[in-house]
Amino acid sequence: MSVVKNYMNEVGAGAREASRRLARASTNEKNAALEAIAKAIESQREAILAANRADMEAGAAKGLDAAMLDRLQLNSARINSMVEGLRQVATLDDPIGEITDLKYRPTGIQVGRMRVPLGVVGIIYESRPNVTIDAAALCLKSGNAAVLRGGSEAIRSNQALAKCIQAGLAQVELPATAIQVVETTDREAVGEMVQMPQYIDVIVPRGGKGLIERVSREARVPVIKHLDGICHVYIDDKADVEKAIVIAMNAKTQRYGTCNTMETLLVSKGIAAVVLPRLAALYREKGVELRGCAATQAIVSGVIAATEQDWYTEYLAPILSIRIVDDLDQAMDHIRIYGSAHTDAIVTEDYSRARRFLREVDSSSVMVNASTRFADGFEFGLGAEIGISTDKFHARGPVGLEGLTSLKFVVLGDGQVRG
Amino acid sequence: MSVVKNYMNEVGAGAREASRRLARASTNEKNAALEAIAKAIESQREAILAANRADMEAGAAKGLDAAMLDRLQLNSARINSMVEGLRQVATLDDPIGEITDLKYRPTGIQVGRMRVPLGVVGIIYESRPNVTIDAAALCLKSGNAAVLRGGSEAIRSNQALAKCIQAGLAQVELPATAIQVVETTDREAVGEMVQMPQYIDVIVPRGGKGLIERVSREARVPVIKHLDGICHVYIDDKADVEKAIVIAMNAKTQRYGTCNTMETLLVSKGIAAVVLPRLAALYREKGVELRGCAATQAIVSGVIAATEQDWYTEYLAPILSIRIVDDLDQAMDHIRIYGSAHTDAIVTEDYSRARRFLREVDSSSVMVNASTRFADGFEFGLGAEIGISTDKFHARGPVGLEGLTSLKFVVLGDGQVRG
Repeated sequence: MSVVKNYMNEVGAGAREASRRLARASTNEKNAALEAIAKAIESQREAILAANRADMEAGAAKGLDAAMLDRLQLNSARINSMVEGLRQVATLDDPIGEITDLKYRPTGIQVGRMRVPLGVVGIIYESRPNVTIDAAALCLKSGNAAVLRGGSEAIRSNQALAKCIQAGLAQVELPATAIQVVETTDREAVGEMVQMPQYIDVIVPRGGKGLIERVSREARVPVIKHLDGICHVYIDDKADVEKAIVIAMNAKTQRYGTCNTMETLLVSKGIAAVVLPRLAALYREKGVELRGCAATQAIVSGVIAATEQDWYTEYLAPILSIRIVDDLDQAMDHIRIYGSAHTDAIVTEDYSRARRFLREVDSSSVMVNASTRFADGFEFGLGAEIGISTDKFHARGPVGLEGLTSLKFVVLGDGQVRG
Repeated sequence: MSVVKNYMNEVGAGAREASRRLARASTNEKNAALEAIAKAIESQREAILAANRADMEAGAAKGLDAAMLDRLQLNSARINSMVEGLRQVATLDDPIGEITDLKYRPTGIQVGRMRVPLGVVGIIYESRPNVTIDAAALCLKSGNAAVLRGGSEAIRSNQALAKCIQAGLAQVELPATAIQVVETTDREAVGEMVQMPQYIDVIVPRGGKGLIERVSREARVPVIKHLDGICHVYIDDKADVEKAIVIAMNAKTQRYGTCNTMETLLVSKGIAAVVLPRLAALYREKGVELRGCAATQAIVSGVIAATEQDWYTEYLAPILSIRIVDDLDQAMDHIRIYGSAHTDAIVTEDYSRARRFLREVDSSSVMVNASTRFADGFEFGLGAEIGISTDKFHARGPVGLEGLTSLKFVVLGDGQVRG
């Protein structure tokens, strides 16, 4: 057995062992741990910043690009927001142990379902050190042990944060292996993590598409993931034009690099001549490059011809593809063929078309008259978000604490037997 | 591409295509299809019985054992119960399209969750032809397309039933590929089915352990399964003795071959001398072989010494292993180490121990003062059961219609954008 494999097996076995203790931890214990970690981070602020400076210097020397260095960087404000995040998670309702639907059956037994942790959650992420604390908080609150594997460029920052986590766990006498930050930067560790179903119950990869593809391909453990966010807004010919314009602008330009940003705008031919020239002018003010179908080019000048590949592309940039469609059915066909089942919205005042869009579009979030940018755990009221799932199995859409849990059946009887 | 691979790809693509139509089928359409299939089976009764006789003759010639031939055999009563099953599924509430938790958020959008089908369900089963109809009914009602692959020994019976399914679908104008019974008996078809994530969203294997192991090992699609049912009853020293005796008898002897049958009886040392001699006498009347720990042997004569392997064994037979434990903690440790996370019960009148057992035993069904034999979709009130899951991801415990569905987020707005 290789050194890395051996180490990861120890980490996994420790997590499995700790998961049993965490599953029965009281809400007070878990909240006390979150607060203790928050306090440890506050008191270790200088050490964390020093570790991060070393990561930043090594990263700059390695030639990391500016965006990556920005994600890697910690400062006082970012540390404050980690601390605040821990305290916010402490205020969330504890999902664990809740019993729902407890009903008497004809035989006299009562049957209900109790929410329980999944067990051990593995998080694989890239350069952002704040994910270490976010993920630790959500796993802890949901009663799961966690194995956290951040990017090698953030190793010093993550190890400094790991010390705070350890101090917090120790203070409330929860096992040290409840939350483990992987100490090796060897990429083999990721390969091991995703192939230990005996120790890890679910993997949540957080980061770029390359990471998520690798994890999905190699995993022998269930994965909560989304690969692409090719989100659409469809402006129906029965849309309120003013609503259509603010939604289409917000969905594209509020932030360019997020997965719930609109990448393709679909417009009904019956309204295209009214909305597209106005929208095109507004997009250009923001510096958004427009790529469109021939019909779009006929209405708006200076639009680049969109290729088939454009409809499949998540730009994550100030680029928008635009297609004029005949009607709702063609819009929904486009979404089905080219979309990524992430988030899609219709703008319409037509009741029956709104009702059809909600039922028939098979995406993890479907919206009427709202910006796709709302597809987010906080905006949806989950209180937190560990990731987004575009799969249908287990969890779909933004995943909060509930996505890290399962339901077991509980039966209360008084000596009943089956006849 | 091999002939079988090519054929399975066609089946899969057809199922995927039909799944979109089924997802938006109304409850009336789905119920009409169930009734049309029921009527077709009634009118094709003689043809189905003739096909089954041919399967039975071929099976006898191939030397199938008596138990397998019994599972394979259809008769008028079994056909009636398939017809009745279809009509029962029609009476169940349609889970699809239900919106729950629709709440206004501070931004003015309303956010809720809509229940949707998983898409395409693959069922892999063995000799029982009634599974063809059971599975078809549950998939149809939950708005999923189905690919059904029964055992080769039942091929004629299954094809006769497939004709009834096709007749029913045609009558209500649902696509023929909505429910497909695989026509080839080539085992390669199973290998293909479990490796088509582009066409099949979940696999439910139904049958013996060998089948389930093979499917789990090869699957690149999520699997709803349980491998073993090593179920325990723990008789606490605070148990009501009379309840303990009826529960322990029922859990073992009501049926021997079912997955929710007790395989190991755990007894607190404080009550063993009271309950075990009485229980042993009753088990012997039923012809149950007893294997026990040394402490059990000291109390009850004629008990065979249990080996370490016994605690891991699902007998599915009139054999019971018995272990005397110190207390609740030792009982729960035993269940954790040797159990299969299926169904475990405590018999006790002690409130705090019952509460701990419910919270801490990590099994898909946990019970207080009730027979493990209740772990069943019908007994739990699910109305039907496609299988049982001992995994925690997605579905846990008996799986009814809800386990074949997912939840997507729906957002209703009035022009809201993200600030």
